Amino acid sequence: MGIHSYFKSLNELERIIRCPGKFKFEEHSVAAHSWKVVQYAKTLADIEEQHGESVNWKKLYQITSSHDYGEIFIGDIKTPVKHASPELRSLIQKVEEAMVYNFIEEQIPQEFKAIFHDQLREGKDDSVEGQILEVADKMDQVYEAFAELQRGNMEKEFVTMYRNALIKIKKIDLHCVDYFLSKILPDMVRDAMTSTVDIKRITEEAIGLHEPAVTV
Amino acid sequence: MGIHSYFKSLNELERIIRCPGKFKFEEHSVAAHSWKVVQYAKTLADIEEQHGESVNWKKLYQITSSHDYGEIFIGDIKTPVKHASPELRSLIQKVEEAMVYNFIEEQIPQEFKAIFHDQLREGKDDSVEGQILEVADKMDQVYEAFAELQRGNMEKEFVTMYRNALIKIKKIDLHCVDYFLSKILPDMVRDAMTSTVDIKRITEEAIGLHEPAVTV
Amino acid sequence: MGIHSYFKSLNELERIIRCPGKFKFEEHSVAAHSWKVVQYAKTLADIEEQHGESVNWKKLYQITSSHDYGEIFIGDIKTPVKHASPELRSLIQKVEEAMVYNFIEEQIPQEFKAIFHDQLREGKDDSVEGQILEVADKMDQVYEAFAELQRGNMEKEFVTMYRNALIKIKKIDLHCVDYFLSKILPDMVRDAMTSTVDIKRITEEAIGLHEPAVTV
Amino acid sequence: MGIHSYFKSLNELERIIRCPGKFKFEEHSVAAHSWKVVQYAKTLADIEEQHGESVNWKKLYQITSSHDYGEIFIGDIKTPVKHASPELRSLIQKVEEAMVYNFIEEQIPQEFKAIFHDQLREGKDDSVEGQILEVADKMDQVYEAFAELQRGNMEKEFVTMYRNALIKIKKIDLHCVDYFLSKILPDMVRDAMTSTVDIKRITEEAIGLHEPAVTV
Amino acid sequence: MGIHSYFKSLNELERIIRCPGKFKFEEHSVAAHSWKVVQYAKTLADIEEQHGESVNWKKLYQITSSHDYGEIFIGDIKTPVKHASPELRSLIQKVEEAMVYNFIEEQIPQEFKAIFHDQLREGKDDSVEGQILEVADKMDQVYEAFAELQRGNMEKEFVTMYRNALIKIKKIDLHCVDYFLSKILPDMVRDAMTSTVDIKRITEEAIGLHEPAVTV
Amino acid sequence: MGIHSYFKSLNELERIIRCPGKFKFEEHSVAAHSWKVVQYAKTLADIEEQHGESVNWKKLYQITSSHDYGEIFIGDIKTPVKHASPELRSLIQKVEEAMVYNFIEEQIPQEFKAIFHDQLREGKDDSVEGQILEVADKMDQVYEAFAELQRGNMEKEFVTMYRNALIKIKKIDLHCVDYFLSKILPDMVRDAMTSTVDIKRITEEAIGLHEPAVTV
Repeated sequence: MGIHSYFKSLNELERIIRCPGKFKFEEHSVAAHSWKVVQYAKTLADIEEQHGESVNWKKLYQITSSHDYGEIFIGDIKTPVKHASPELRSLIQKVEEAMVYNFIEEQIPQEFKAIFHDQLREGKDDSVEGQILEVADKMDQVYEAFAELQRGNMEKEFVTMYRNALIKIKKIDLHCVDYFLSKILPDMVRDAMTSTVDIKRITEEAIGLHEPAVTV
Repeated sequence: MGIHSYFKSLNELERIIRCPGKFKFEEHSVAAHSWKVVQYAKTLADIEEQHGESVNWKKLYQITSSHDYGEIFIGDIKTPVKHASPELRSLIQKVEEAMVYNFIEEQIPQEFKAIFHDQLREGKDDSVEGQILEVADKMDQVYEAFAELQRGNMEKEFVTMYRNALIKIKKIDLHCVDYFLSKILPDMVRDAMTSTVDIKRITEEAIGLHEPAVTV
Repeated sequence: MGIHSYFKSLNELERIIRCPGKFKFEEHSVAAHSWKVVQYAKTLADIEEQHGESVNWKKLYQITSSHDYGEIFIGDIKTPVKHASPELRSLIQKVEEAMVYNFIEEQIPQEFKAIFHDQLREGKDDSVEGQILEVADKMDQVYEAFAELQRGNMEKEFVTMYRNALIKIKKIDLHCVDYFLSKILPDMVRDAMTSTVDIKRITEEAIGLHEPAVTV
Repeated sequence: MGIHSYFKSLNELERIIRCPGKFKFEEHSVAAHSWKVVQYAKTLADIEEQHGESVNWKKLYQITSSHDYGEIFIGDIKTPVKHASPELRSLIQKVEEAMVYNFIEEQIPQEFKAIFHDQLREGKDDSVEGQILEVADKMDQVYEAFAELQRGNMEKEFVTMYRNALIKIKKIDLHCVDYFLSKILPDMVRDAMTSTVDIKRITEEAIGLHEPAVTV
Repeated sequence: MGIHSYFKSLNELERIIRCPGKFKFEEHSVAAHSWKVVQYAKTLADIEEQHGESVNWKKLYQITSSHDYGEIFIGDIKTPVKHASPELRSLIQKVEEAMVYNFIEEQIPQEFKAIFHDQLREGKDDSVEGQILEVADKMDQVYEAFAELQRGNMEKEFVTMYRNALIKIKKIDLHCVDYFLSKILPDMVRDAMTSTVDIKRITEEAIGLHEPAVTV
Repeated sequence: MGIHSYFKSLNELERIIRCPGKFKFEEHSVAAHSWKVVQYAKTLADIEEQHGESVNWKKLYQITSSHDYGEIFIGDIKTPVKHASPELRSLIQKVEEAMVYNFIEEQIPQEFKAIFHDQLREGKDDSVEGQILEVADKMDQVYEAFAELQRGNMEKEFVTMYRNALIKIKKIDLHCVDYFLSKILPDMVRDAMTSTVDIKRITEEAIGLHEPAVTV
C-alpha cells in the first residue's frame, strides 16, 4: 500500500523484454525504452520551441515517462496480436487502463489519487505533447529495428517494425518530424551504407606495410 | 511457407520467458516448460494405466507437446491480466485460436491441414488425456513456484501461483492426482523443511575436528 | 527419493547448454532441444501414417521425450570427444546407462521401476519409432547449425554439424526422410539465399521517395 | 555527426551496469536507473507542489533525464574510488564535463549547441529541482540496496550504500523528504520484516488440511 | 594451423561453465577458474618459500595456467560421472591427453612441439609444484561451493564439493596447507557465521532514531 | 582481514566486464582476460628463451597474473577517458596504486606485506618480463577486437582498439614481437579473409547432388 508499492513496482519494467520471442542481437527492457523515449521527446520538444511552438513541459514529462507503465500489468503483448483484431487491441487497451485504474484506487493514498490518474492516463492525444510522444515512441522502434538489421538480423518482423514506424512518423505534422526526416534519418541510412571493415588493410596500415587511408 | 515455417517457428518458444516482470532466481522458457509438461504427463498417464484406465497416447502426445504453441503469436500474457476480466480471457483465447488457425491455413500444405488443426487444438477437455494435461501444466507451476519460494523469493505472485495450482489440481478426479497429493507433494514439502546448511559443522567434520553426523 | 526426485531433476536439463565452448549467437538448453525433437517427431510420424505405416505412439512418446535424460548425469559431452575414440563413445554410453539404471533403482518406487527402465532406455533402435527419433534428433542439429551459419557464425564446428546431420538423415529409409529432403530442406536453403536487407530502399519507400517493391 | 550521433549514443547506457564487480541478485543498467530517477522525481515534485512550492518542470525534465549521460564517456566508476580521494572525485567530474562539452562541440549542430550545453549540465544545484534530483538519485540507491539485502545478499557495499543514501536524503530540506521518511520508508522496512513464506502451511491450506490463515 | 590456432582456442574456456546443470547463484567459466588457481598458487608458493622450500616458478607457471586446457576438447564432465567408474575416469583422462597430443602434433609448428608437450602435460605430480596445483585447484572448489552455500543454495552437490575438497586439501603435506587450515579457513567460516543484515536497525540508525551500533 | 579477504576478492574480477557500454557479440570478464594474458605471456617467454634471452619466471608469473588486480577497486575505466587527459590517466593510476597499497596495509598480515607490495606493483617496466606483459596485454586487445570485427561488429571503437594495439606491439623490440608479426598475425588475417559459408553448396554435397569440393 502507498507510494512505496508504486515505486517498488517500477522495477518490474526492467525485466519485461520488448519483442518477446524474436531472435535479436541486443535485448531492450521496457524501462530502458521508456528512458530513451523521454530523451528523444526532450530534443523533439526543443525543436518545436525553436520553431515558436509552446510546449507544456509538465504534461510532456508525465506522459513520456509513464507511457508504458501499464505493461507492468499486461506485459509486452506481441506485435502480431496487437494488429490481429481491432476489437482485441481496443479491449486490451481498456483492460490495461482498468488495471492501472484499480491499482491507483487500491494502492495510492487519497491525496495523490487525482495526480496519479492524471499522470498514468493514455498520453497519445492530438496535443503537441501527445504527438511528440507518438513520434518519440516510434523513433525508438526505428532505432531498435535499425540496429538489428544493420547487424544482419534477417527476421522479417524488424523490417516491418522499421517500415511501419517510419510511415507513422511521416504522417505526423510537426516541425520535429521534418527535422527527423531531413537531417537525422539520412545520417542513419548513411551509417547503414558503410562498407564492412577491411581487416587486412587496417592491419597492414597499422604495422606499416601501407600508407594509411585518408579517413577511418 | 510449408512445414519448414512451422519447424522454424518452434525456436521462438525458447525465447519467451514465463512470468515476465517478476523477479525470479531462475528463468524458464515456454519451450522448457512444454518439455517438462510432456514428461510429467507421461508418468501421470502411466499411473492411470496402472489403475486400469486406458490412455490414448497419440492424443496425449499431441495435446501436451503443443499445449502452449499459441504463445508464439501472443506471448506469455501476464497472469494478472488473464484473471482481470473474463471477457478478456475468453477473447484472448479466441484470438490465439484464430491466429493458430490462420497460420495453418496460410503456411501448412493442403495435405497436412487437417492434421495440424487437430494437433494444435485446445487440449484441456474432459477426457482422461485433457485432464492429465491440466494436472501436468499446473504441476509445473507448483514446481516453478516452489523452487523460488524455497530460495527465499518473497514475491507474492509465487505464493499465489503455488496455492492456486494446488487448488486446481486437487479438484481433478484422477488416480494420478491421488498419487501426487499423497506421495509426491509430501516429499516436496519435506524438501522445504530442510534446515539450512551448517557450514561450520561441515567444515569441522571435513578437517577432522568433529565426528561426522550420521546423515548428510 | 520417489517420483518427486525424478520430477525435480528434470529442471537440470534447462541449465545444460548444448555445444559448450563454441561461440554461438543463440544458446539452446537440452530441455528446449528435447521439446523440439518431440515436436518434429510428431509431424514425422504423421507423415509415416499418411503413407500407411503404423506408429506405436506410446513408444514414440517415451523415447523422444526422454532421449537425452541421461545428460542429467553426464552433461553434454563435447562433440569432438564423442568421435575421438570408439571405445570412449561406447564406454560413455555404458556409463550413462548404468547411471540411469542406478538412479531408477535408488530413487524410483518399486511399482514404477519396470516402467522407468522401459521409458528411459536407449530409444534409437531399428523400429519406425527409433528411426523417427534419430531423424528428429539430427533435424534439430540441422536447424541449430543452420541458424548460426545464416547469421554469419564462422565456427567450422557448425558446418560439420550441419553436413554430418544431413548425411545421417539421408541414410535412413523412411517416407518422412523423403519429405524432408524434397520439401523442407529446399525451403530452408531458399531462406539462406535471401539477399540481405536493403535498408536504404526500405527507408525511401517508407517515406515515399520510391515506389514500393512488389514483395517484401 | 549530428543529432543522430546523440540519439544513437543513448543505447550505450543500456549496457553499462551499475556497481560493477559486486555480486548482486539483480543487475541494473544506467538507462533503467535513469528512468526510475525520472519517475521518482515526478512524484517528489508533485509533493512539493501540493505544499505550495513551485517547480520548473522543464528544468526538472532536463536534469533528471540526463543526469548520468556523462557515464557514456566515463563508465560507472566504482563507488570506493569515488570516495578514495577528493581530488580524484573532483578531477573525474571535470573530465566527465569536459568530455560532454567536447562531444557537444564536435557532434551537435550549431543551432542546438546552447540547448545541449544547458541540458547536459550538472543538475544537482541548490534549486528545488536540483535537490529533488539528488533525493531521487539517492532513493534509487536505497531501493537497489534494499532489494539485495532483503534477498540475503551479504556484501557490505550494499549496507553502506543503503545507509549513506538515507543519511544524504535526510539532510535535504524538502517536503518530499519528510514524506519519504514518514510514509514511504516505514512501508519499505515493514516489507523487510515479513517473515519468510511457510510453504508447509500454504500447502496444507491449499489441499484442505487446514483452515486458511486470515490474510496472505 | 600455428600458434594462432592455439591462442584463438583459449577463448573457448571462457564459454565452458563449471558444474553444468546444477542451479547456482553465480556461474564460473573455466577460464576464470584457471586464473584464480594461478593466483592462489602464487601465494601458496610464497608461503612455501617463506618456510625455506624451493619452488620452480617456471614449472609452477606452466602447470597452473594450463591445468584445465584439455577441457577445450572434452568440456566440463559432470562431477558424478567422474566418480561413477574408475575405468571411465581413467579412460577420459587418456582421451583428453590424446586429444591434446594430437592438437599439438597437428597445429603447433615443429620448433614448439617439445615446449607444448611439456607445458600441457598433466601437472599434478608429487613435486612441490604439482602439490601446490592440487591444493589451489581444490581451494577454488571450496570458495565456489562456500559462496553458494552462504547465499542459501541447498543443492547437495555443493555440500559434497565443499567437504570433499577440504578432505583432499587436508591430506597434502605442505606448509601452505597448514596455513590454509589454521588461518584462512577459520576466517571463511567466520564469514558464514555472520548473522543476516538487520535492515530495520540500519534504517533507524541512518535516520537518527537510534544510536549507531559499535561496528558494522 | 587476512589472506582470505584477498582470495575472496578475486571473484570480483569475474564480474567486471571489459569495454563497458559498447555493443559486443561476446563479453569478456577481467578475470578471463587476465588468464589469457598469462597464457600468451608464457609462449612469448618461450620464444625469448629460444632466442637465448633469459627470463625471470617468478617475476613474469607475478606481474602477468596480477596486472589488472587494481581494477577490483577502480573498475574498467572506459577507454576514451583513459586517453582524454594525461593528468587524469596519471592520477587514476596513482589512485589505483594507492588503493592497492591501502588494501595490503589493512588486510594482509605483516609477514606477507612485502611480498604483496612486490607482487601487486605495476609490472610494465623496461625489463624483458615487463615488455612481454605489455605485448601479451595488447595481444588480447587484438584478439578481442578481431573477433568482433570478423562477426560484423561495426563499432569504431573496435577498429581503433585493434589498430592501436598493433601499433603498440610493433614498437616493442623483442624476438616474440617479430614472431607475432611474421607468423601469427598473417594467420589471423587469413582467417578474416575466409569467404562466408556457402550453405547451398554444403547442403547439395551432403545430400549427394554435387561432388564435394576439395577442402572444407
